[in-house]
Amino acid sequence: MGLMDETEIGAFLAVRRHTEAICSNLTPEDQCIQSMPDASPAKWHRAHTTWFFEQFILAPHMDGYKTFSPEFSYLFNSYYETVGARHPRFARGMITRPSTDHVTEYRAHVDAAMAEFIGSGRASSALLALGLQHEQQHQELMMTDVLHAFAQNPLAPAMIPAWCPPSPSTLADEFIVFEGGIVNIGHDSQRFAFDNEGPSHRSLLAPYRLANRLVRNRAWLAFIAAGGYTTPTLWMSEGWAAAQENGWNAPLYWRKTDDRWTVFTPGGERPIDLDEPVRHVSWYEADAFARWSDARLPTEFEWEAASEDPRITEREGHVWQWTASAYLPYPGFRPVAGAIGEYNGKFMINQMVLRGGSMATPPGHTRPTYRNFFHPDRRWQFTGLRLALDL
Amino acid sequence: MGLMDETEIGAFLAVRRHTEAICSNLTPEDQCIQSMPDASPAKWHRAHTTWFFEQFILAPHMDGYKTFSPEFSYLFNSYYETVGARHPRFARGMITRPSTDHVTEYRAHVDAAMAEFIGSGRASSALLALGLQHEQQHQELMMTDVLHAFAQNPLAPAMIPAWCPPSPSTLADEFIVFEGGIVNIGHDSQRFAFDNEGPSHRSLLAPYRLANRLVRNRAWLAFIAAGGYTTPTLWMSEGWAAAQENGWNAPLYWRKTDDRWTVFTPGGERPIDLDEPVRHVSWYEADAFARWSDARLPTEFEWEAASEDPRITEREGHVWQWTASAYLPYPGFRPVAGAIGEYNGKFMINQMVLRGGSMATPPGHTRPTYRNFFHPDRRWQFTGLRLALDL
Amino acid sequence: MGLMDETEIGAFLAVRRHTEAICSNLTPEDQCIQSMPDASPAKWHRAHTTWFFEQFILAPHMDGYKTFSPEFSYLFNSYYETVGARHPRFARGMITRPSTDHVTEYRAHVDAAMAEFIGSGRASSALLALGLQHEQQHQELMMTDVLHAFAQNPLAPAMIPAWCPPSPSTLADEFIVFEGGIVNIGHDSQRFAFDNEGPSHRSLLAPYRLANRLVRNRAWLAFIAAGGYTTPTLWMSEGWAAAQENGWNAPLYWRKTDDRWTVFTPGGERPIDLDEPVRHVSWYEADAFARWSDARLPTEFEWEAASEDPRITEREGHVWQWTASAYLPYPGFRPVAGAIGEYNGKFMINQMVLRGGSMATPPGHTRPTYRNFFHPDRRWQFTGLRLALDL
Amino acid sequence: MGLMDETEIGAFLAVRRHTEAICSNLTPEDQCIQSMPDASPAKWHRAHTTWFFEQFILAPHMDGYKTFSPEFSYLFNSYYETVGARHPRFARGMITRPSTDHVTEYRAHVDAAMAEFIGSGRASSALLALGLQHEQQHQELMMTDVLHAFAQNPLAPAMIPAWCPPSPSTLADEFIVFEGGIVNIGHDSQRFAFDNEGPSHRSLLAPYRLANRLVRNRAWLAFIAAGGYTTPTLWMSEGWAAAQENGWNAPLYWRKTDDRWTVFTPGGERPIDLDEPVRHVSWYEADAFARWSDARLPTEFEWEAASEDPRITEREGHVWQWTASAYLPYPGFRPVAGAIGEYNGKFMINQMVLRGGSMATPPGHTRPTYRNFFHPDRRWQFTGLRLALDL
Repeated sequence: MGLMDETEIGAFLAVRRHTEAICSNLTPEDQCIQSMPDASPAKWHRAHTTWFFEQFILAPHMDGYKTFSPEFSYLFNSYYETVGARHPRFARGMITRPSTDHVTEYRAHVDAAMAEFIGSGRASSALLALGLQHEQQHQELMMTDVLHAFAQNPLAPAMIPAWCPPSPSTLADEFIVFEGGIVNIGHDSQRFAFDNEGPSHRSLLAPYRLANRLVRNRAWLAFIAAGGYTTPTLWMSEGWAAAQENGWNAPLYWRKTDDRWTVFTPGGERPIDLDEPVRHVSWYEADAFARWSDARLPTEFEWEAASEDPRITEREGHVWQWTASAYLPYPGFRPVAGAIGEYNGKFMINQMVLRGGSMATPPGHTRPTYRNFFHPDRRWQFTGLRLALDL
Repeated sequence: MGLMDETEIGAFLAVRRHTEAICSNLTPEDQCIQSMPDASPAKWHRAHTTWFFEQFILAPHMDGYKTFSPEFSYLFNSYYETVGARHPRFARGMITRPSTDHVTEYRAHVDAAMAEFIGSGRASSALLALGLQHEQQHQELMMTDVLHAFAQNPLAPAMIPAWCPPSPSTLADEFIVFEGGIVNIGHDSQRFAFDNEGPSHRSLLAPYRLANRLVRNRAWLAFIAAGGYTTPTLWMSEGWAAAQENGWNAPLYWRKTDDRWTVFTPGGERPIDLDEPVRHVSWYEADAFARWSDARLPTEFEWEAASEDPRITEREGHVWQWTASAYLPYPGFRPVAGAIGEYNGKFMINQMVLRGGSMATPPGHTRPTYRNFFHPDRRWQFTGLRLALDL
Repeated sequence: MGLMDETEIGAFLAVRRHTEAICSNLTPEDQCIQSMPDASPAKWHRAHTTWFFEQFILAPHMDGYKTFSPEFSYLFNSYYETVGARHPRFARGMITRPSTDHVTEYRAHVDAAMAEFIGSGRASSALLALGLQHEQQHQELMMTDVLHAFAQNPLAPAMIPAWCPPSPSTLADEFIVFEGGIVNIGHDSQRFAFDNEGPSHRSLLAPYRLANRLVRNRAWLAFIAAGGYTTPTLWMSEGWAAAQENGWNAPLYWRKTDDRWTVFTPGGERPIDLDEPVRHVSWYEADAFARWSDARLPTEFEWEAASEDPRITEREGHVWQWTASAYLPYPGFRPVAGAIGEYNGKFMINQMVLRGGSMATPPGHTRPTYRNFFHPDRRWQFTGLRLALDL
Repeated sequence: MGLMDETEIGAFLAVRRHTEAICSNLTPEDQCIQSMPDASPAKWHRAHTTWFFEQFILAPHMDGYKTFSPEFSYLFNSYYETVGARHPRFARGMITRPSTDHVTEYRAHVDAAMAEFIGSGRASSALLALGLQHEQQHQELMMTDVLHAFAQNPLAPAMIPAWCPPSPSTLADEFIVFEGGIVNIGHDSQRFAFDNEGPSHRSLLAPYRLANRLVRNRAWLAFIAAGGYTTPTLWMSEGWAAAQENGWNAPLYWRKTDDRWTVFTPGGERPIDLDEPVRHVSWYEADAFARWSDARLPTEFEWEAASEDPRITEREGHVWQWTASAYLPYPGFRPVAGAIGEYNGKFMINQMVLRGGSMATPPGHTRPTYRNFFHPDRRWQFTGLRLALDL
């Protein structure tokens, strides 16, 4: 066993342990429920990420690997049509059995086999990396899905009582000028990237300005006070309809009691901190806020071209940043063959790109080329915005 | 403390223990989920029945009683408008906390206080009886709600692995003749009855015939084979629409694999037993079956007038029996004053009466005057039918 | 041709002309639209009533009768499963063609054939009577459906500009005492009645009191002012849910502008007349009002037993009167054989009985035994109430 | 009055007459109904386009202009929040009054005022052009909306009995190579264009190939035969869900009877012509077809850059061509001030761009820079596709 393999085993186990750490305060019940069709139970995330290794690495490639439980493929396949029938997404909260403990055993079984298989030197590094990146994505979803589930409980329990948000930048707001021109977009290096980050290609940008930091709660309160949620002309037509239908008058998880705003966080209900970047806003709200500010959202290309500039702060670790770009394939994009090819390509419609990374994203998971994507009305992720301007 | 009180304490503790016994095989996750808006989690049933004693007996009547947790009234009030705001019914499955253990503590806290209060001789026997009858009703709902939840799991787990259905009657089918005339309907004795069973009153019946036993699975298979589910003229118009919309082609929980029918039971998936009374049919199906049989459902008055006749078997302990009677107030019915008056009266619309009692009903819970009621499209209870004929 | 036939031809033509008279102010567009699934376009009513004569009398019984247009059976069959496929109910408003004029030709074609066939003496009097009673029922539905359609138009046009409501009784409110006992219910004479009015049978009533006249708008305004629409304990549970979901705060078609209530009528928008019987209330509202009044709705049997008493005024010609009775078959009821048997029986679930007759009912159409029925949440008919009390 | 004004009056009247010509076969009923929320009645289109001239030109700019009917602004405002309250979109089919004739009078009233105002030389040419282009857009919607309404009628009437589709290209299929590079996109000339066509800007394209003609019915039948509608991996995830939910197995308006496919057209039901470009397909279907063809949809920029090349045939006059581009603002796009600014900008989310022009588009209405847009699941427009390939 060489150094590489040791590193790979270490990396594998570290990611797997991090998943368990996120759940350390969760009861079996907390891990079981599904609070909306978009969310999944924590137990399901724990099992599904395990199934991914079993399905795509161990079962096809490791001689003599014994599947933990044949029924799990039906239960824990997320959306891979190529792999066979699967439990309907909206019914994931009905799976009281296998129990939390049984899923823990499943994880141990697969961990042991993976450690052995990585140790044997025959594991594909590319597939292993994909499995780990995949699990990191689900670590973030576990945070946001459990937060949503806890928010449905009138007792407003804290999923991580000691939770603290990251410290925001203390710089003054400033718009940084960028020249634009022909820039390279997308991923071309040897390190891991998702298929949707490539092919690397050139893009032509007009000169633009980009805010050095994220929009704050202070500004959002001003937007609310100025009638941002009651002025239809600030909004996309469908955004206005969504706001009316859902009764939006503030970001998700904000609540006003006696003229005091609070926000529900992983640490429970907390007063609004004016200096924190706003989070849990939909693209529609971000877009309306930008219009009210006489600004706009940046395109994902503007964001990426500026992302290495040290004057651009809060690039990651706070909130995912909505962009003005629809989630579309890059020129020349072709999904890889087989089930793994269902990973990103089949979602390239009706969603908007977010860039950066949030406080719920595992450290080191993202890159400047990383493309996250959600529908424009979704708010349960840690989503915020950074403003841009034409020159 | 006199004999009566000892008996009351004993009765109280027996009912309370029975609730726990039903849940003895259930994991915390099993007790937490809600598989449809009509159903409630087992944990919720356990807490709600406890809250009932706390809300209506201990808090108003026992000096110095200390409420276990002030938030529980919001969480575990079912539908009593008079008592204050409550958690929405459809969101009962979101209550991962309080945990199962916490609810067990809640039950112990209330049990201890109730034992002391009953022992003091100051507890209202009427309220105590109501609380116990109420808990027995929820014992049945726990069975049917958990069965429904387990049925959503593709693993089809057994909630009570050793479960066996009661032995059916082995008599031959026969229609018993009844003279009708003026009969007494409803409850008038000194023993406990729900408010909807009274006032006792006279009713005039034409002569009729009533089947000595319940409709069997054998007959139901004949109904299926004869096109019962594909012949609209056998059905009420809204029943036919419900059957089409929901794709009914057999009772709930029936499944056909390779020409073999099985049914999902508390003991897991089992082959159909031709001699068992059919269960999990809606009123619409029962009504269509009766029409196909050139018979009809009995009215609840015909059922009650015949119920003491020893030739009428399977009166209880198998399935609730749909009647031809809409659930309406008896002449002179007035709900009792206060929140307790919300118990039965406000549901007297759009539902049909069932008589008898099922295998999930706690022994001794029902009476010949007992009126159960459900909407005509519901199937998750243990519901079947007995045929009647005009003379 | 004897006197009977002449009378029958006269009766036939009079009913047919009355249908046309109701539509005399309606444009082709007015006759075409369908404002909700429960309603049908006026043109459809005109064609469907015509199809009824063609389908059940002319086609099967008149030698050499030539069907006007074979496609019309598909278009204008309402719900007769026995008769073949039919256009879906909710899509009746899509039938711009055949045009209004074409339907007028259809009516003329069938009228001529019917006149000839009646004149020949070979027409079944029973079927003819059924066809005419059927058309009279649709005359009332035309009124209520067109009123509903016009109410959707912000211009609030008047379907009958000169329309006036009937004069209400000027008696003082009084409760008339009835002894009850065994009474005869249902129809047994030689004259026409619908199948659901029989068999005639005996019913046992406790003594009761019945209001001599209908509930007025004045009383309804007091109910509103007393918080009738905001007090859940006055309502059936499902009624309260319906009121909340639909935002009910007054009868249908009532509108408040600057503290003045108006009501939309066939004559357009009019001020509320305090002395008129209230109309366009659901069963849920009627039931809540009765409870607020410390009274109740009468059963349909109480209503029928009292209906010939001259002290009971406003029996018909104002509003249909909700009763406390669910719409169920009478003892011994069997639908007649064939498609005609689908007339009433298959709707005997989930609906409540109304008695009397409304200002939209053709004069002479109803009887004391007449049973109308609607779901308890429906409000677009001319529906009101009369109170009852236990003795 | 100068030559220019005469031309403008002529152009104005020509467009207005063309609207009436489209409706010449429609009855008042045909013009009144709304067959789905996305569609509007023909009468509404005729009135709304008239209101546009009244609201934005005559009322604010022509001295002494007398509004035809003050209520019409409420009824016939489409979506301009700035202009005031409006009738809900889904209820446009409820407007039986004003009648068709009344709307014809409205058109005459506005036509006369417009002719006078244009003649006076004081009418803004820009606003006039916008009003005419706007009316031309509605001419196309009238065609597609009425076609959809007629398709709901089981009689399948022809809205234009003599209708014939345009002759398709007879060239062989060929992919034309384009170099890409930096191209100019968008409108910059002095002639009319919609705001969403600008600002003109440069875009960088990789080399690509574009089909010389549109995809045919012949190819679509091969797609169907090859299982295109039953192979999930060909589809976007949401496209597959839409196909399943709506039961798509062919383009809209296609119907198979005894192994023969027909399509419902403005001329009624016609056999499929294998050589015609396919129409009435959603973006989802177009995208799946392209994937099945080992090709892709072109971006709107590729389309525009190639559109002047004479080898690219069927650019317009057949079907709108779905592109791979989401409908987004061009760099530097700012809506114009005021209500007119609500024209295009507020719809720039969740829709895909179509280029070209269809057989229902008024001749001369479109340009190479013209951007049409619809949601990816919509099929009632004349929509098809042209394939592209990477080089």
